[in-house]
Amino acid sequence: MFLDNTFVHHVHFWLKNKEDKATLIKGLETLIPIPHIRDMHIGVPADTNRDVIDSSYDVSLLLLFDDKAAQDAYQVDPTHIIFAEQYAKPLCARVVVQDSVNI
Amino acid sequence: MFLDNTFVHHVHFWLKNKEDKATLIKGLETLIPIPHIRDMHIGVPADTNRDVIDSSYDVSLLLLFDDKAAQDAYQVDPTHIIFAEQYAKPLCARVVVQDSVNI
Repeated sequence: MFLDNTFVHHVHFWLKNKEDKATLIKGLETLIPIPHIRDMHIGVPADTNRDVIDSSYDVSLLLLFDDKAAQDAYQVDPTHIIFAEQYAKPLCARVVVQDSVNI
Repeated sequence: MFLDNTFVHHVHFWLKNKEDKATLIKGLETLIPIPHIRDMHIGVPADTNRDVIDSSYDVSLLLLFDDKAAQDAYQVDPTHIIFAEQYAKPLCARVVVQDSVNI
């Protein structure tokens, strides 16, 4: 299906300590009830290896929203703020977000 | 919806020349008929600006597959190979792929 009307929010997390992977994933799962989210995928690097592939991150969070307004509402949702403060900031050395919208 | 059984293939493209954006997007649209693809999103950076956001890329291609086998089949699909040779390689200075699978 060609995804029109979709705001793609993709976050990649690099942990300070690899042992915290399960804790970070537990934190990501607290986001599931946030109503603005249309689709959610929590992942880890696939077993693919080509020169263009970046598999250096530890955990991936892909969220699909209906529009930017929904993503903006997610950003300030208390559940998301708690996740950022209690999980993402203390556990991660690096977080990169790439947001993409239809052309 | 929580996306189980999903192989996330996200490609970010950085053009050599910004004027080639429409040509690259035209090339990406040639991928639409490839049967192994479940969902496809072609995008450009959203208007979001926080310190964690990377909006340096020019074009985003997000593909969702049912599993790694489908993604592997896509990689060798002739339509994809033509896209890589005729559009991605000549037009892009940098291509980064991040593949993620369910935990």
